This record gives sequence, structure tokens and C-alpha cells, in this order.
Amino acid sequence: MTPEPPPGPDEFQIIARLLRPLAGSPEALGLVDDAAAIPARPGFDLIISKDAMVAGVHFLEADPLDLVARKLLRTNLSDLAAKGAEPYGYFLAIAWPAGTGWADCERLAAGLAQDQAQFGLTLLGGDTVSTPGPLTLSVTILGWTAAGAMVRRSAARPADRVLVSGTIGDGWLGLKSARGELTGVVEPGAAEWLAGRYRLPDPRLELREALRALAGGAADVSDGLIADAGHIAAASGVRLRLELERLPVSEPASQWLARQPDRAQALAALATGGDDYEVVLTCALAHVEALIAEGETAGVALTEIGEAVDGEGVAALYRGRELELDRTGWRHG
Amino acid sequence: MTPEPPPGPDEFQIIARLLRPLAGSPEALGLVDDAAAIPARPGFDLIISKDAMVAGVHFLEADPLDLVARKLLRTNLSDLAAKGAEPYGYFLAIAWPAGTGWADCERLAAGLAQDQAQFGLTLLGGDTVSTPGPLTLSVTILGWTAAGAMVRRSAARPADRVLVSGTIGDGWLGLKSARGELTGVVEPGAAEWLAGRYRLPDPRLELREALRALAGGAADVSDGLIADAGHIAAASGVRLRLELERLPVSEPASQWLARQPDRAQALAALATGGDDYEVVLTCALAHVEALIAEGETAGVALTEIGEAVDGEGVAALYRGRELELDRTGWRHG
Repeated sequence: MTPEPPPGPDEFQIIARLLRPLAGSPEALGLVDDAAAIPARPGFDLIISKDAMVAGVHFLEADPLDLVARKLLRTNLSDLAAKGAEPYGYFLAIAWPAGTGWADCERLAAGLAQDQAQFGLTLLGGDTVSTPGPLTLSVTILGWTAAGAMVRRSAARPADRVLVSGTIGDGWLGLKSARGELTGVVEPGAAEWLAGRYRLPDPRLELREALRALAGGAADVSDGLIADAGHIAAASGVRLRLELERLPVSEPASQWLARQPDRAQALAALATGGDDYEVVLTCALAHVEALIAEGETAGVALTEIGEAVDGEGVAALYRGRELELDRTGWRHG
Repeated sequence: MTPEPPPGPDEFQIIARLLRPLAGSPEALGLVDDAAAIPARPGFDLIISKDAMVAGVHFLEADPLDLVARKLLRTNLSDLAAKGAEPYGYFLAIAWPAGTGWADCERLAAGLAQDQAQFGLTLLGGDTVSTPGPLTLSVTILGWTAAGAMVRRSAARPADRVLVSGTIGDGWLGLKSARGELTGVVEPGAAEWLAGRYRLPDPRLELREALRALAGGAADVSDGLIADAGHIAAASGVRLRLELERLPVSEPASQWLARQPDRAQALAALATGGDDYEVVLTCALAHVEALIAEGETAGVALTEIGEAVDGEGVAALYRGRELELDRTGWRHG
């Protein structure tokens, strides 16, 4: 549209040389069409989610682009994980800022290739444009479940137990660490580990069968445990009571925690911090043991941290006392 | 992720008050989940395309946001039109710049609502984030065709005729007009009409049945007639010869054309300008009359402008002489 030459690398070169090799499935039609044709898969639902990430908002401007690409896929895979869906493919829109070099594009494509292979994804299509603003990426991810089997936010019921996978707060501490704010607060190795958790989350896809079989409501922890529990509460019409002293905390995060003057407030900060890409879920009491056992088999720890009751919203408790939270989780800007 | 409050309007308010009313289909799950579940439709392919638009690149910063929203849907619908697909629904990612007011969000939602109703689309999901850059929008659009019936870029064959819908060059002249560059060049009413063609294209969905039945290769004209014909040529392994003196030109564009010193170069400019959102297609000689008749019935003029031959690329001819083009169509930056 603009008569000026595009400031970034040539769109057609990027597609032909970097993206086409990522689009090997017949549905992608070699990216020579600007649409993919997905055949019906009788008995299955196509699960589709779309996310956007902006440099300086959702990742650091200085983050290496292969890691940015992998985080982009992983945050979207995390959506699929919480839905109990099998990863299938994705569409990618990239708005390149002025001055993006070919090496940057190559690095981004290398990150996509690496995690496509790791998670069994294929590129199905997309768009590349230029922007006078920061690097902006959007993924539309597609997965499959058996018809009607998607795990929903709306399926929590009173008396359900609340469980969470992995450890909570590492994403938020990892951002602090990546910004150099944990130097001298935790050991260097711990700071590095936390920054890695921020830069490269692990989508909990290993849990998807267990979730489909045993979970009530579920959501991935992107906005923060309390905010995402709040999404389940709102969608399900229940209240979730979370006991912060039961919060699973990594060893590096516990180093930080030990130095905080108010443990309750510190735990609340971890539970509102966001970017964990764990799964928060509810299940009937009768299923708790089986779910934890399935998690163990899959290599993912699940910790019971609370329960669903009649009412609405989320209560964060510390030793039986409800905390007044001045926020219900960082909202991604 | 960022501890600062988001600079734009609150994401959850936007979703709850402005976007949820647009997401009435059961597949969208009321937007309370962050994924949609699309049931299989046996016998049909799901046609999916994804585009991004950036303020200042793909539309003017000052354009009213309801028109921006409608252009966004229409450019995506234009992709579906060229594929012969029936519109179904879309996912929307919005990156709001700092200082976006609630009224801006409302206006954008109003534009979405208007064109959803006009074109039979439903909102299925998406994401809203903030950005320090310009307003950035991405749509993933979904449509249906019978299994295997998608019209492809790759189906042009030597001896096919090349046809184009509507008129060519209005989008490029419309951008000039919107920038005030046609004042005194064409009549005020003509300038306004052209700006309207730029701001609010008409996706040629009326052609979809005829395309499925009679077309060979097809593409929508977004990058410019010559560039998009080039996409068909490349995907099909043929050469397309376009006779520019046959280019269908609107009355307002012909006012501009009459004032140009070199008619061949001026026609070439219209044919490389982009943003027309017409359809360029090929069909067997035996189908030309039927296709033009079907277009007439649907209210869309189709004009024969050339032919496919052995070879590659696109030749732009004026009265039998091949023009040397210094570009093969504006590439959206």
C-alpha cells in the first residue's frame, strides 16, 4: 500500500526461504495460497486460540529472537494444554520493526523450527508486515480434542478441590531476574534458572489426558494464579478459596521468599505475578489422588491448594486469614 | 507481566462489554474460555487465513476506527472470496496504543458488529493487549467449502483466460485521495468515491459459487493486480500476459487517467497499486462467457484482460508491447 520500500526484510523472501520450510503439511499448501484448507475430522473438535505478544510488553526487547519465537509457541501451547487438546498447527502474523535484519528473521525461524519439532506442530499460514512500532507477533494455534471433550473454565463445581501444576511465581521472579533485579537476592544459579523459566516456559501438555479424564474446570496460569483462578470462578459461578501456605514454590523462588519480610504478602505476590504457564484446575475430591498420580506418571507435580465453594471470586488465605489483595493478578497490558 | 497498569483500556472490560456481544455462537463459549471449539463438519474443509494491519502502514492513523474495523474484516473476507469459501467466523487480536480511549474501542466494536451482520460472520475469540507502538490488528478468518473445493492460486493452466472483477486502481488512487493528493486532479465527488474505495473495500463474495464452479486459479487483489497475478503464475507454473488497455477502470479513475502524460505507465501504476480487493482469476476459454454471465447475475462485472501461456511470471502489455516494470506491484510493508 505504501509507495515507500518496506523497512524490514522482504516479505516474499521471508516466506519463501524461512517460513515455507516450516509448513510441510499438505493443508498449508506450501504457503503458496494465502489460506489453509483443513479437512473435517469427524468425531473431533478443532480447538482454536489466538494470542498476541509485543516486544517490551510480553518479552524484553533484548531477548534473543529464537527464544521469543519459542516462548510465543509455548504460551499458545499452554492454552491447548489447559484445554486438554492435542497440538496440531498454527498461523503466525509478524509485524517487523524497521531495521530488522535477515539474521533476526533467521533466528526467529530457527526458534519456531526447534519447538515445532519438539511439540509436533506445523505452520499452516499467516502474514508478515512491517511496523513503525515494536516487534509484534500473533499466533493462532489449532489443536484437537474428541468431540465435546475440551476442558473448560466453566466446569468447576462447589466442593471441587483446586490443584496447580509445577511451581508458581517463577515467571514473575524470572522477569525480575532477567531485568537484573535479583542480583544479590538469590544465588546466581537460582537467578539464571528463574530467568529461564520466564524466557522459556514449559507448556504442561503432559497433563492433557489426565485433565480430559479427571478435571472439572481448568485454565493456564498466564495472567497470574489468582487472576486465572478468577477466570475459572467467574466462568463456573463458584468461589475458589486458595491457601497460600500450600503454594508450590521452586527452590530458587524459596530463596527469594526467605528474604521477604512478610511471607503472606510475598506469597500473594507470587500468586499474582503471572507468566507461569502452569495449569490451575479443579476436580472432584474423589479424583484428587488419581489426578496427582497421573501427574506423577507424566512427570508433572500437582499440588492441592484449595477448594471451590458457593459464591464468586477468589479468596487468598494465609493460615486461615483472608488477605486483602490490592490487585487480582497482573493483567497483561 | 509488566507491573505498571496497562496504558490502554482495561482488557477485561473490553472483552466483557464490547466483544462478548459479538460472539454469539456456541462455539465461542461466550469468550469465557480462551479457546473456541469448532465441531467437525463432515464433507467440508475449514478454510483459514490470517492477516495483520498496522496503523500508518495499512490504514491511515486518522481513519475512523469503525471503518478500520470494517476494512479489516473486508480484507480478510476478500481472501475467502477468492478461495470460493463461505464466511463463518473470525478471531481478533488487537494491540491498543497508549492513550486509546473507551470511545475508540466502542467505535471499533461498532464497525465489527456492522460488518459481522452484513457478511454473516461471528466472533470466535482472540486477544487484546497494549502496545507502545501503533494500533495493530490481526484477524484469523474461517470459512467453509465443500471438501476439496477451495479455489487455489495453483490451478491456472496454459491457454486459460485471465479475468478480473470490478475495476482496478481505485484502492491506490483512493489512498492518494485520502491523503489529499487528488485535489484539483479529479472532481471532488470522484475523489471522495475513490477514498471510499480505499477505506471500505467490497469483498467479492458474490462470485464464490461461480469461482468454485468455473475458475482455474484465483487470488484477491491486495498487493496489486500484477503482483497477485504473479502469485497465481508462480503457484501454477504458468506465465500470465495482461493487456493493460483492457484494464477495467472506474469513471473516477478514468478522470485521473485522462490527465496522465503516459497512458501506458499510468495503467501500469493502477495495475501495481494494490488495495483493490477485487479477484483476479483464470478460467478455460470455454467457461469465459458463463463466468461473465454468472458475474452479471451476481452484480459483479468480470473483464477478460489476458491469458495464461507457458513460461513464468507476468507480462504487462500495452497495445502489444511489453512494458518494462520497475516493480511488480507494491508490497505491503
